[in-house]
Amino acid sequence: MDGLDSTQLRTLAAVVSEGSFEAAGRLLHVTPSAVSQRIKALEETVGQVLVRRQRPCDATEAGRPLLRLAGQLALLEREALADARGPLGGDPGRTRVAVVVNADSLATWFPAALARLPARPELSFDIRQDDQDHTAELLRDGVVTAAVTAQREAVQGCRVRPLGAMRYRALAAPSLADRWFADGLTPAAAGAAPVVVFDRKDQIQHRFLRTLTGRTLDPPVHYVPSVPAFNESIQLGLGWGLVAERIADADLAAGNCVDIAPGRVLDVPLYWQHWRLDSQVLNALTAAVCAVAADSLR
Amino acid sequence: MDGLDSTQLRTLAAVVSEGSFEAAGRLLHVTPSAVSQRIKALEETVGQVLVRRQRPCDATEAGRPLLRLAGQLALLEREALADARGPLGGDPGRTRVAVVVNADSLATWFPAALARLPARPELSFDIRQDDQDHTAELLRDGVVTAAVTAQREAVQGCRVRPLGAMRYRALAAPSLADRWFADGLTPAAAGAAPVVVFDRKDQIQHRFLRTLTGRTLDPPVHYVPSVPAFNESIQLGLGWGLVAERIADADLAAGNCVDIAPGRVLDVPLYWQHWRLDSQVLNALTAAVCAVAADSLR
Repeated sequence: MDGLDSTQLRTLAAVVSEGSFEAAGRLLHVTPSAVSQRIKALEETVGQVLVRRQRPCDATEAGRPLLRLAGQLALLEREALADARGPLGGDPGRTRVAVVVNADSLATWFPAALARLPARPELSFDIRQDDQDHTAELLRDGVVTAAVTAQREAVQGCRVRPLGAMRYRALAAPSLADRWFADGLTPAAAGAAPVVVFDRKDQIQHRFLRTLTGRTLDPPVHYVPSVPAFNESIQLGLGWGLVAERIADADLAAGNCVDIAPGRVLDVPLYWQHWRLDSQVLNALTAAVCAVAADSLR
Repeated sequence: MDGLDSTQLRTLAAVVSEGSFEAAGRLLHVTPSAVSQRIKALEETVGQVLVRRQRPCDATEAGRPLLRLAGQLALLEREALADARGPLGGDPGRTRVAVVVNADSLATWFPAALARLPARPELSFDIRQDDQDHTAELLRDGVVTAAVTAQREAVQGCRVRPLGAMRYRALAAPSLADRWFADGLTPAAAGAAPVVVFDRKDQIQHRFLRTLTGRTLDPPVHYVPSVPAFNESIQLGLGWGLVAERIADADLAAGNCVDIAPGRVLDVPLYWQHWRLDSQVLNALTAAVCAVAADSLR
């Protein structure tokens, strides 16, 4: 085998990141049919189907290692080119850094880490949002370069650093707390009172109830997958829910909500996982994320 | 044909809403193998593959009309049962109302509509978030019962009502505005200045630039798919972006941001589309959504 064609690898990455052959073609300034030919050629070289042709397109099991390789090559190539050309060497093209972040980190401390990097017009952040227990999948699949994740074990080819814990408090509107939790968070009340959950991947409310009551409860659930809407739904009395400390403390101070389990919290330890790459952008982002997390997490 | 089996239809809905045979089994209190047998039996009755077996599971083209039918039957069945049994008739089971809402509506006015409905322990909201130009797909596919959408044409089987327009202003941090827009939002500046975009489906920034400059521009983009993180990224100077009026006016008043296109706004008309069903819950939700939107949109 003659090694892999870098244009074909770039095309694979574009198809998966943009979701279709048409969109990848627009990004690469070629026709969808050229995109299709490159993917087919790469699949013939490897002897495996690499792209699942659906909307959006996805990498197959066999395609994932190649997708990660494509991302790593692109980042290193850009930086080598920029170094070789020097500061006056003209446009080295854009460097896209893809990072997946859990919703509560993204809504609170994470943007400050992005803003710490010196503004460089060629640098584009491609932030994704996912549950902290699922962020490592996108890293393993090569869709992102780094992740804020609850997974402590290093994904293959990645380095991992602890960031501290995100602390959650159980909040409810005073009216909901009066109706359901006048006698505290008893198993009977917790099994019957409505709870606001971010989405189907979000297990922390149920985990918190299991820790508190020793039982697996099945309360009525409202799914509200938006941090501000989640928070407002709790304030408006739709259900109780676990709210990240920074937002919870503001709600408690304003009197919008009460803590229905005073003195009981849920701590979710978070980690920064990133590809083992000697990349300037990645090193700078790692330093910024660790510094901001140190100020924001426990 | 003997008509469709309602248990099989319910199982199809559970597989798609929960994403896997295992999770559907947990919801329905049966084994994954029982789920699989029911889906196969339904597929044999219809003579089509109905479920794409992947993670998460999805309905095929042929499965979608059946999915919608399953959702409609479930809603009507619950209400008929509750009516038949009367207010003391015991637990009629839970009614899940699935609604897709665009991110900016969800982060601003939509939760107040949910809170207007009288609290009923058997009612569960299953809110989804998607781009306003894509929300109608989930409605057509039968995944949701109603949508806040930018699509004005009624989806087949649905009723549509105008809700008013969400108004957006182009904001940037003062530092970013000084650096790039000292001479206003010229085509040269708009093509070079970094812009914050919600996700790949979000086209409004590019549409706004096209309207203003008459050109299709390709500025550097940061994707930040979280309303609070999007807003904070703009405040921190990562890029400019279009911010929903209610949030924008607070940012402008606080002096965190400046309007880089004073007097120019983007209005996105929104519509409430819902299945044509004589359902009490859906009627109550429609009245609440229309009332809150009338106060919040233009």
